[in-house]
Amino acid sequence: MSDQDALVIFTPSGKRGRFALGTPVLTAAQQLGVDLDSVCGGRGICSKCQVTPSFGEFPKHGVTVFENAVSEFNAVEERYDRIRGLKTGRRLGCQTKVQGDIVIDVPPESQVHKQVVRKAASTRPIIMDPATRRYYIEVEEAGMDDPTGDFERLQAALKAQWNVEGITAPLSVLRKLQKALRKGAWAVTVAIYDAGEDQSKMLDVWPGLYEEPLYGLAIDLGSTTIAAHLCDLETGIVAGSAGVMNPQIRFGEDLMSRVSYAMMNPGGDAEMTREVRAAMADLARTLAADAEISTDQILEAVFVCNPVMHHLLLGFDPVELGQSPFALTSSDACTLDARDLDLPLNPAAQVYILPLIAGHVGADAAAVALSEAPELRDDLSLIVDVGTNAEILLGNSTQVLACSSPTGPAFEGAQISSGQRAAPGAIERIEINADTKEPRFRVIGSEIWSDEDGFAEVIAGTGVTGICGSGIIEAVAEMRMAGLVDASGLIGSAEQTGTSRSLPEGRTHSYLIHDGSDRDGPVITVTQGDIRAIQLAKSALYAGARLLMDELGVDEVDRVVLAGAFGAHISPKHAIVLGMIPDCRTDQVFSAGNAAGTGARMALANVSDRRAIEAQVQRINKIETAIEPRFQEHFVAANAIPHATAPFAELAKTVTLPNVNFNPNSGDGAGGRRRRRRG
Amino acid sequence: MSDQDALVIFTPSGKRGRFALGTPVLTAAQQLGVDLDSVCGGRGICSKCQVTPSFGEFPKHGVTVFENAVSEFNAVEERYDRIRGLKTGRRLGCQTKVQGDIVIDVPPESQVHKQVVRKAASTRPIIMDPATRRYYIEVEEAGMDDPTGDFERLQAALKAQWNVEGITAPLSVLRKLQKALRKGAWAVTVAIYDAGEDQSKMLDVWPGLYEEPLYGLAIDLGSTTIAAHLCDLETGIVAGSAGVMNPQIRFGEDLMSRVSYAMMNPGGDAEMTREVRAAMADLARTLAADAEISTDQILEAVFVCNPVMHHLLLGFDPVELGQSPFALTSSDACTLDARDLDLPLNPAAQVYILPLIAGHVGADAAAVALSEAPELRDDLSLIVDVGTNAEILLGNSTQVLACSSPTGPAFEGAQISSGQRAAPGAIERIEINADTKEPRFRVIGSEIWSDEDGFAEVIAGTGVTGICGSGIIEAVAEMRMAGLVDASGLIGSAEQTGTSRSLPEGRTHSYLIHDGSDRDGPVITVTQGDIRAIQLAKSALYAGARLLMDELGVDEVDRVVLAGAFGAHISPKHAIVLGMIPDCRTDQVFSAGNAAGTGARMALANVSDRRAIEAQVQRINKIETAIEPRFQEHFVAANAIPHATAPFAELAKTVTLPNVNFNPNSGDGAGGRRRRRRG
Repeated sequence: MSDQDALVIFTPSGKRGRFALGTPVLTAAQQLGVDLDSVCGGRGICSKCQVTPSFGEFPKHGVTVFENAVSEFNAVEERYDRIRGLKTGRRLGCQTKVQGDIVIDVPPESQVHKQVVRKAASTRPIIMDPATRRYYIEVEEAGMDDPTGDFERLQAALKAQWNVEGITAPLSVLRKLQKALRKGAWAVTVAIYDAGEDQSKMLDVWPGLYEEPLYGLAIDLGSTTIAAHLCDLETGIVAGSAGVMNPQIRFGEDLMSRVSYAMMNPGGDAEMTREVRAAMADLARTLAADAEISTDQILEAVFVCNPVMHHLLLGFDPVELGQSPFALTSSDACTLDARDLDLPLNPAAQVYILPLIAGHVGADAAAVALSEAPELRDDLSLIVDVGTNAEILLGNSTQVLACSSPTGPAFEGAQISSGQRAAPGAIERIEINADTKEPRFRVIGSEIWSDEDGFAEVIAGTGVTGICGSGIIEAVAEMRMAGLVDASGLIGSAEQTGTSRSLPEGRTHSYLIHDGSDRDGPVITVTQGDIRAIQLAKSALYAGARLLMDELGVDEVDRVVLAGAFGAHISPKHAIVLGMIPDCRTDQVFSAGNAAGTGARMALANVSDRRAIEAQVQRINKIETAIEPRFQEHFVAANAIPHATAPFAELAKTVTLPNVNFNPNSGDGAGGRRRRRRG
Repeated sequence: MSDQDALVIFTPSGKRGRFALGTPVLTAAQQLGVDLDSVCGGRGICSKCQVTPSFGEFPKHGVTVFENAVSEFNAVEERYDRIRGLKTGRRLGCQTKVQGDIVIDVPPESQVHKQVVRKAASTRPIIMDPATRRYYIEVEEAGMDDPTGDFERLQAALKAQWNVEGITAPLSVLRKLQKALRKGAWAVTVAIYDAGEDQSKMLDVWPGLYEEPLYGLAIDLGSTTIAAHLCDLETGIVAGSAGVMNPQIRFGEDLMSRVSYAMMNPGGDAEMTREVRAAMADLARTLAADAEISTDQILEAVFVCNPVMHHLLLGFDPVELGQSPFALTSSDACTLDARDLDLPLNPAAQVYILPLIAGHVGADAAAVALSEAPELRDDLSLIVDVGTNAEILLGNSTQVLACSSPTGPAFEGAQISSGQRAAPGAIERIEINADTKEPRFRVIGSEIWSDEDGFAEVIAGTGVTGICGSGIIEAVAEMRMAGLVDASGLIGSAEQTGTSRSLPEGRTHSYLIHDGSDRDGPVITVTQGDIRAIQLAKSALYAGARLLMDELGVDEVDRVVLAGAFGAHISPKHAIVLGMIPDCRTDQVFSAGNAAGTGARMALANVSDRRAIEAQVQRINKIETAIEPRFQEHFVAANAIPHATAPFAELAKTVTLPNVNFNPNSGDGAGGRRRRRRG
């Protein structure tokens, strides 16, 4: 350091150091560890290292910056500005030289570890640090005096120019290498996948500087639906999202039906594997077509899924998952070639699948654990992801427990007499007047309540077609609060309730919500069977949560997070009235949206998050509901529907439900589940 | 150590130590690092650890061994002997306990690092240390209290029982895992491939103890023929060998013709890749069928081949190999999945390809370098592998040089008027009487000379069909020694030579060896064109060798090793007369047989040999004949045919050959080669 050195201060990091006059800004940033991007390594062609020098007085930093503190626009910058345009004040960090004390701002888009902009400020940020990165390199030209191969000289260039070592390349990439090097006049852009443990794979090579975006897919492979996000691997921006039904539904609506199908039909597992892979291939092609990109630009895919979907995706017979002790073929996170899953992405694309937590608690639950991270909070979180199975996490910075509870599909509107999937025309909100016992409701796709002006037009439009999952929860809770249903779940007769909406139905009663028969529409009622189905589902959910609370020795939780599409629409008040979730302040009940999908996006965007969830899954304490006698006790005890004005605990303990013959200790999980659904 | 400890001495290693009475022999061996095999880890079921205790006086070792120095046959040994039979004196090392001072012999078949028994004692030994090994393990049973997957518990067992870590498994193996574990009652045998750098792959899994042999293929993929050995991966024994013609021949007889085909025909390289892979797939199936094994038992394949075959095998366009600077796509050794080469072996089988030395000096030359190991000797070896190209190595413990010389196919009998491949009926040995100028000869498949009784039956049998490569060399050398040909290579007229076997042919002459026309057989002559073709081929070979000698600054070598099938049949005397190889004592000219194939077998048998040749190839000094002006000088100078009685050097310097227009500096290797073949 000499007196001639200049003080260079980078914002927003605040990193500072002294550098010899003439030092390029990019060099100063790299030496200080400032998060400033560069793909071309300072050759003035990629424009990723744009910075904004600031001038004037900076009392906070103790410097005065003069106009001549950085070099003037040079030919490279002028050319770049002329052809592509530089924003006012922006400079190329590799071309701009330090000439005096200077403050330099690194705008967000020039940072490697960008934070992805997301709508909900409360959600965990996604910081870009993807497994796949692109590098521009200049490779030593082949010559008679050097007998090494083009790939070996490329490896040497990567080591010398980017300090990246231990590269391998699949045949599909090596096949393109010689043409790319010659077309690019010995300069190429390569995509390198960090496979961990100093192993890296070259996924693609392009002549010269390749600037088209590179993408990854974050896929939430559910039993019912498959949802995928196409994400830019550098900015994290979601370029497209799409969902399709899981075609395996025709082999069985829920997981255990599909396991049974595999057991009963030789080759049935392979058939389901083919179907789901074909659906995912279509999904990938659709997303690429909609975004107007080539599937070759998709270099990665991250999957989250439950254990049965995991096994069927990978081509493992799921038979062991249908019987105690529910042994997984493999539980660790895995990385494999996309072509091994018949995915039509880049030929060298890599797939990462999050770890499974246990035989019943899958990579989807791991993804929820990654996105919600209860281990980072001191207060106690109960996180519930409701699907055909409910994945439940309970924990704080001390420890985290997990279990899965077989709620069945009632919460998704299935096995409900007027139930339907969430779609326009489905009742999603209901209120019942406790005095008149009259209902008012709203359907998906309309903001108008059924007793408001203009509802006739709603009916004339989409119609009232059924009740979705969140609607049936509200309906049952409102019926209970309005005195139409007693604590045991029994619907009263018209005499008992004082409303003609109580309709006799065999030896039980149902409650009429909407009669659309005059318009050839459906008559929508809540039947005694519907109440029983909801009671079973919510009891399973509640019992799972209670089991984890018992394990921690607590009677209440600080906050409840409802994950999943269903969780996003559910009303906290009604969930508590119904006894789905343990006692909690309603303002401490949060919706996390598609937390599993978010976890998949995080793992796609950030390789450290993969290592973090792999380590966290090892620490999570797995509770197996099927072998815990207390699960059955809680399940039976939770069958009652507590009234909003009564203490929940009191009601929950006094009721037992007839007609339930569910013994999770029988060792026959599949059978047990089937019996319960009949109940 | 207590007084009660016994002295245990192992032979043949001589390793010794004291052990507590009751110590199993296997345990003692393992603690002393004695090379004693075990697959089941001492459970008494694999029988690999058989030893022979010796009794009586051992003055050399200073011990007396009493009859009770080892425990008696136990139940395990009795059962094993009853069912499978133990040789007299043999014991199971894991069951036999030390009870006193004892001398224990480890027979060769119980050693892990067995030396493979080979016919020629002079050849380098093959010591077994294969990349793929089998392990018998007992895996923790799946249970409700352990949520980890079966594969993770298998990994833990491998670590605990064999200290093997860092295992991955392809989907094809994971798919079989759960069934194998349950069928084997949680005991399985696994095949683990050591991929280096603490990475291992599980290639297969079988229930219980799997005892069928495991195999590997050592494949010498030549331009003309593909030869493969099926080798037992534990004993090294060759269970079968087979060869087929390289079907690419229809795209061009030599390498450069095939490169030209790829250049001229879009997709031509892919076509040749398909053909050669299909031929190898057939070869693998044939070898498995002949040995009556399943292709699933073949877990590895090792390839040696020249650079063009290497590129066409891997699916790389060879176009760069047809023009200066002959840049390889990749030169390092590589490991890949056999399925990527469409080889019908075990679905998880691994392929290892030896490193390439340079653009013209391939993995076949590396294999020769591995099997002949000139770097292990102090005397100077010249190693020549003659094929369509000659690979030449020159070196000793100080340094090793390599080059490739484009000899063309004349040495293989191609482009010779009566030439043919080595097959029954082909003339392989010739003598010409210097006084009478009359020839006598022998054909392949018969020991009878043409002037001996019984030759008529030979003719009646196979017939005399042509001259093979070694035959044409002898013919030209004998013609020179008999004064039928002058130093410039010109065949004399009947007047000049005094024999009516000198037949006029246009403006030149030919020499009649055999006239079979009275039996509708061929008239076999050596034409002036044949002599020119042989002169060109031998000049190229000689010039390459001289170039390397110049580089080392030597005028002679201590020994010459002729490798390849051709080298095995060539007569040292005639090779020297012809001037194919530099001056050397004829008793220092050796045949190494198929040294490239041997190198492939070594790399298959011993993983350390792979690392050794990878390191050695980095050290080998590559000389590129095409850019060395002296190569052309040597080539032109070497065109003469020295007479056996004259000093070689004198003759070699005085003659230049007309009609040759070969300029290796033109930068057009392919063109140069074509021109030379026309000469």
